[in-house]
Amino acid sequence: MTRFVGIIVVLSALVAVSLAASLDMSEIHNQRQFVGGSETVSKTRESNLIDPNAMGKGKTGPEEEKNAQFWYDLAHEEIARKLEQPQVDKRKAKNIIMFLGDGMSLSTVAAARIHKGQLKGNPGEEDSLSFEKFPYTGLSRTYCSNAQVPDSACTATAYLCGVKTNIVALGVTAAVNFNNCSGSEDPANRLTSIAEWAQNAGKSTGIVTTTTLTHASPSGAYAKTTNRFFESDTDIVTYGEGQNDPATCTDIATQLITQTPGKNFDVMLGGGIGKFLPNTITDPFNKKGERSDGVNLLSRWQGMHPGGVLAYNRDQLLSVNASKITNLIGTFRSGVMSFHKMADAKEEPTLKEMTRKAIEMVSKNPSGYFLFVEGGLIDYGNHYNSPTYSLDETLQFEEAIQEAVGMTNPEETLIVVTSDHAHPLTISGYPGRGTPILGLNQDDTDVNGVKYATLNYAVGLEQYLDENGQRYDLSDKIGKEDFIHPSYIRGVIGVHAGDDVGVFATGPQSHLFSGVVQQSTIPHMMAYAGCIGDGPTLCNTQE
Amino acid sequence: MTRFVGIIVVLSALVAVSLAASLDMSEIHNQRQFVGGSETVSKTRESNLIDPNAMGKGKTGPEEEKNAQFWYDLAHEEIARKLEQPQVDKRKAKNIIMFLGDGMSLSTVAAARIHKGQLKGNPGEEDSLSFEKFPYTGLSRTYCSNAQVPDSACTATAYLCGVKTNIVALGVTAAVNFNNCSGSEDPANRLTSIAEWAQNAGKSTGIVTTTTLTHASPSGAYAKTTNRFFESDTDIVTYGEGQNDPATCTDIATQLITQTPGKNFDVMLGGGIGKFLPNTITDPFNKKGERSDGVNLLSRWQGMHPGGVLAYNRDQLLSVNASKITNLIGTFRSGVMSFHKMADAKEEPTLKEMTRKAIEMVSKNPSGYFLFVEGGLIDYGNHYNSPTYSLDETLQFEEAIQEAVGMTNPEETLIVVTSDHAHPLTISGYPGRGTPILGLNQDDTDVNGVKYATLNYAVGLEQYLDENGQRYDLSDKIGKEDFIHPSYIRGVIGVHAGDDVGVFATGPQSHLFSGVVQQSTIPHMMAYAGCIGDGPTLCNTQE
Repeated sequence: MTRFVGIIVVLSALVAVSLAASLDMSEIHNQRQFVGGSETVSKTRESNLIDPNAMGKGKTGPEEEKNAQFWYDLAHEEIARKLEQPQVDKRKAKNIIMFLGDGMSLSTVAAARIHKGQLKGNPGEEDSLSFEKFPYTGLSRTYCSNAQVPDSACTATAYLCGVKTNIVALGVTAAVNFNNCSGSEDPANRLTSIAEWAQNAGKSTGIVTTTTLTHASPSGAYAKTTNRFFESDTDIVTYGEGQNDPATCTDIATQLITQTPGKNFDVMLGGGIGKFLPNTITDPFNKKGERSDGVNLLSRWQGMHPGGVLAYNRDQLLSVNASKITNLIGTFRSGVMSFHKMADAKEEPTLKEMTRKAIEMVSKNPSGYFLFVEGGLIDYGNHYNSPTYSLDETLQFEEAIQEAVGMTNPEETLIVVTSDHAHPLTISGYPGRGTPILGLNQDDTDVNGVKYATLNYAVGLEQYLDENGQRYDLSDKIGKEDFIHPSYIRGVIGVHAGDDVGVFATGPQSHLFSGVVQQSTIPHMMAYAGCIGDGPTLCNTQE
Repeated sequence: MTRFVGIIVVLSALVAVSLAASLDMSEIHNQRQFVGGSETVSKTRESNLIDPNAMGKGKTGPEEEKNAQFWYDLAHEEIARKLEQPQVDKRKAKNIIMFLGDGMSLSTVAAARIHKGQLKGNPGEEDSLSFEKFPYTGLSRTYCSNAQVPDSACTATAYLCGVKTNIVALGVTAAVNFNNCSGSEDPANRLTSIAEWAQNAGKSTGIVTTTTLTHASPSGAYAKTTNRFFESDTDIVTYGEGQNDPATCTDIATQLITQTPGKNFDVMLGGGIGKFLPNTITDPFNKKGERSDGVNLLSRWQGMHPGGVLAYNRDQLLSVNASKITNLIGTFRSGVMSFHKMADAKEEPTLKEMTRKAIEMVSKNPSGYFLFVEGGLIDYGNHYNSPTYSLDETLQFEEAIQEAVGMTNPEETLIVVTSDHAHPLTISGYPGRGTPILGLNQDDTDVNGVKYATLNYAVGLEQYLDENGQRYDLSDKIGKEDFIHPSYIRGVIGVHAGDDVGVFATGPQSHLFSGVVQQSTIPHMMAYAGCIGDGPTLCNTQE
């Protein structure tokens, strides 16, 4: 009289066959030598978070998706469907702020919410991140033209240019292949971003990130390249496979400083000064510049913007009087900025502080603004299988959003929060209410009676298996700040995941952001609300 | 001049410390003997999907949450906030259909969407499930009063009664503890469900499920118990730990047939006839009934409903003329119904067919209806780490929803689709576009060069490690219908996950279902739209 008689009968074939398979060790071919932790982890120091060369090759997508119009049409169709819903919100979005949590999967959002509550001494599950209170939410489909699971470049192209493209590509259609620089210079393949649409409407524009100003996410606002790693001229040689010559292929930093729309940005705050300086000079952080072409792009920018200011540390940033300057670049590290938990608080501003200053800069314009703000190290924390960092960075991100909410008028400012892609982070088992989210699941064990972490990744650095392939007890390790959470598949670094990410919206026309949407529809929705761009807008579709 | 100079410096301490930890094998205590696959998997045949005794004990939650009013207030507050948004939708939901995909995590939704497209011969990622086209989506927070990650009982209490309770409990507040039957009989602890609210408004009601009629999810519509496993009187002895006497504690099947609101249901379709029949008689499927009390609840039901009809197979169900009968029970298996892929199509109706018949039954009422439809085997597929089944069941589920959309008038029928809880299923790595979702990730390997599955679970039956603890190649196994997908932690069965699930809504007042909401707010929103229940409704808040 057991409870699952039915299902046990149903599943007997399933279990029996797999059982046989699992026992038949003779089927295990090509066993490889055990690779010790030292070898593998040390490799991660030398490698990038992803391997652009491996990722950019050998993948194909449908022909029709290589045409930008395919995505425009799809976006307009999705918008039209939403407009069929009864609404009386006639407010126009004078200002648009897009917040992007890089690699902020919905599991990361839920775990960060719990972490926030637990930092207050509460169980945690009942807490909310600032943007979770926004009235409208949607789900964003993140696949790219040739990728079931995307990277941060093709997704940036989707959510900033409104077109899905190939993995690793920025600001160009899927018609042009990886590392084809001349193809990326062909006007037929080049896209415009919502930053440019905003500039064309007379609005101010800016980018803020905790990574480099030339990293994949902010670059979606201005760059056109088939390889996101072409951040400096030197990078073009390093990553160009001998096919790309910096003399004829323009690196991302140069695009930012010299081309539309980057050269017109009112404010740019983040890390990565090395991409802008020649290797003949030392940056404010005692590192050599990265450029081989001898060009000092920051000097060039100053020449172009006589009223512009450069800031290299928190004090300099905070002391900027936004009302008295025309343009601002703040670069606070040679490369990406530090995790908030590791940063020297006197040297590096928080994302909240950068967001405040950026809003001060762009909000001077009576015509309004478009501002892009990235919490870029959420992704880094997840790649390193360290929720200690990814959740803390998510809390930094939500504080920056709250700051923006507090500084702006909801009647005229649309705020959209989303992510580019997920991570395979799970909150697993049946932990009791209030179980420390960064600790062991106190209510469950594996079949050997060994407890396991609540937060696990599919792929990553540490499996914590003993020499018999059994998981061992992590009680004395877990919860420490430097703990790398367990994963199933040993990778040189954690990977992305293909489930949808959230969209959270408030302000004029925010109701549009509900529903399951293509990631590439998002900028079109923002453009609709702000009456910018060439597509349908609130202003040109209302009688 | 490497690319991540900044982050490498930042992370050096992190990686170095963990590296040391991973190498210090002297720290690995309490190593256990390797447990072979045969022992572990065979245990799953004897065990339940979850262990109710282990889950129901030793967990505590905040005091204030033990009072139903706490959840009512929270729900009304969330609704009030939504009503601040400009809306002109004044349509009342005469009819409400709630579709519940048990264990349908958002990763399951995305994977099923891809699977659907691939079954058509397309890349897959571009496809959509029927309910993904609904205009409004939300995110539902699934934690329970004492559980960070919930089960299907406390969540059913949330989404059907509007109150969060303890894990494993149904229809009672968190004030009463596990296996406290007398406490569950105390009126102070008992909740009413939206099915009862609908009946009080003169509407028809019904439940449809692919599990048993007394399973946790449908039971949320009518049962009050602190242990969801008390499905029959025999189960009370089996699971009652000697504290519960079926003579004084009413099992769920008896509640369904003899108590309000279950006894008034116009239609009930699903599996689990064994819970209703005495062990002295044989059911239509050649199994003995499960009841020890000698009561034939189906005969009793027929006595109470002279115009009622019983159906035991697909033909009988399809031949029912809904316009000519008053009530209908269809039970198509002794226990839970079969996976669609394994079912005898002549014996067991599909979820779509059951949904059609149920709508025919309840739509006769000019006052409208509330219908609950569960795709209950999505959860089973995920528990068994078999996306082959969980994705197929998700496609069955979306077909049933499409059938309901086609049969109803969107001007007067609110359809809400959601899930109760997630599963730790991930879509991992960077597979190229159109990579078979049930196969190997063709673009990524582990550090040993071994490819891995795109779909993995955190916890489950098969780790596929060789004697050296290394993952082995699954090329010759994966993709077969009986393949158990890999997991990191060896469990007797797969577990649930704690990230949010989706809410998808269409019809009157569907805009309410956007935003991040407490799962327990969902029935209050449905009640608002349908002008039922004691809370604020469209009818009593409009001037």
